[in-house]
Formats: sequence, structure tokens, C-alpha cells
Amino acid sequence: MADETLTFEDFTVGRSFALGPKAVKSDEIIAFAMEFDPQPMHLDEEAGRNSILGGLAASGWHTSSMFMRMMFDSYLSKALSEGSPGIDVMDWRKPVLAGDTLSGRSLVIDARLMRSRPGIGIVKFRHEVENQRGEIVCFGENSIMFRARPSGESAA
Amino acid sequence: MADETLTFEDFTVGRSFALGPKAVKSDEIIAFAMEFDPQPMHLDEEAGRNSILGGLAASGWHTSSMFMRMMFDSYLSKALSEGSPGIDVMDWRKPVLAGDTLSGRSLVIDARLMRSRPGIGIVKFRHEVENQRGEIVCFGENSIMFRARPSGESAA
Repeated sequence: MADETLTFEDFTVGRSFALGPKAVKSDEIIAFAMEFDPQPMHLDEEAGRNSILGGLAASGWHTSSMFMRMMFDSYLSKALSEGSPGIDVMDWRKPVLAGDTLSGRSLVIDARLMRSRPGIGIVKFRHEVENQRGEIVCFGENSIMFRARPSGESAA
Repeated sequence: MADETLTFEDFTVGRSFALGPKAVKSDEIIAFAMEFDPQPMHLDEEAGRNSILGGLAASGWHTSSMFMRMMFDSYLSKALSEGSPGIDVMDWRKPVLAGDTLSGRSLVIDARLMRSRPGIGIVKFRHEVENQRGEIVCFGENSIMFRARPSGESAA
């Protein structure tokens, strides 16, 4: 197995992975909203200013999807991932506005082999995404499944 | 206010809103994955079959975004929504595969006026999305904020 491939064994409790940066562009906010969440504050600057969000704001689901892409670019692209059973919690704490730049981290808070799926481990993460002012805009916890190294193969 | 506009007062505990149907197309699965979650099982039929998902499968974030659009089409498009503070829980219980048809419901399980935001109420929903075999593929709970009717204006 190539040295750069991450397996279950690489996700040790306390290890942290950097996310981003990702610039949030108004045309991306609008394109996502038109397909999945066409509420006025996600489509139009003035409607956003007149809402409690204060400007053209990304749908929370768009923020979550951008966060997913940051996870992919940071570590999932190098890992033997088997997907996720879901989201334990995801708070959209502050509006994500056009022109913001997102970054963050995923911290491993639990890791165990699954009884129900031999050879697969489940890793629980705490995720934080912040804007360019250091304000946390999105906080989440979820678990992701990874293949373990074949037995007999030692860690690099 | 037009009769068809839904305000906080319309989201009474026990009221249910039908979601879907939404046909899940392979090109939509792949387009979403390329932008937000380019893991092999979301991009390629054979890679999906070789994963625990069993076929070309939508990213969980894509399933959640399709669910968002079903909520919009069912009731948010008619409502004075002020967005959502986040997701309390969202389980991706079964794979969503190309060719599936999704439907479901949003059930109001709690509703209260917010102290922190005068004139806005927060409504908690339990959401279920199922496939064409009646299997629940996505289960979630989250809260959405709605404007209340201006005081003095009676319900229609």
C-alpha cells in the first residue's frame, strides 16, 4: 500500500487535519441555491440584506457541501473511505456571505473497528469551519468509515 | 397577507408536509460529486458496486441537498422562512442509488416563538425520506425559523 494512502489506523484520536482555504463566490452561492435551496436570501443580495442573514448568504446545505469538499481535498482523497452513516450534529452558527473565505479543521475524537463490518473502522470527527475573521460559521460532528490495513500488513 | 403564505402560526405540532417525488439521475449524482464529494463511489458505477454502497450512489450531502429542495417545493416556497440554525441529526440510513425515486414527509414536532428574535418562531421538524421500496434512506431532525404574523392580524 502506498505510503500516502490513509487507512483506519492513521486516524488516531487527537490527530487534526487542516481544511481550506475556500473562497465563497456569489455565483456559486446562487448556482447552488437555484438547484437546491431557492430561497430569496440565497439568490439575491438585497433580499439577503433584508433577511436576518445580512447579505447574499450561502444555503446551510451549500456551506456543508463546501465543507465536504474541503474534507475531500484535505484527507478523504488520500484515504480508503467507505462513506459516512450521517451527521450527528451540524450547527450553522454564522451566515456565510459572498466574499468570505472559509478554513477550518477536522479533529479525530474517537476511532474503533466495527463489529458489523469486518476490516472497516469508524472514525468520529469534530469539525470546525471559520471565516476570515476567525468566527466559527459551521460546527459539526460526524463519523466516517475507513478500511483498515489488511491484517499482517504493518503500518509504514 | 395572501392566504397561501405560511407563517409560524401555520406550523402546528403534528402537522405533516409531503415531500417529493424526486427521481435521482446518474448525471446529477456525478455532477454534484465532481463539485463537492469526488469519491469514487459517487462518480463511477463500477466503483460504487465495489464499495459497500452497492452501486453509483449519491453523496450523503447530495441526498441532503435533494431533501432540501423537496422541502422548498413542499412548503418553504410558500413560507416566510428565515433559515435554519442547523441540523440536530441526519442519518443516511441506506444508499441512494441512480434510478431511485425519493419521497417523504416533514412532521412538526415542536414550535415556539423565539425570545431572542421578536416576531420570529422556531419550528422543529422530523424528516423522513424514503425510496421507491418504502425504505427510509434519510432520517433527520432540524429546526427552521419562520416569521410570525404581525400582531393584531388574525389567522385566515
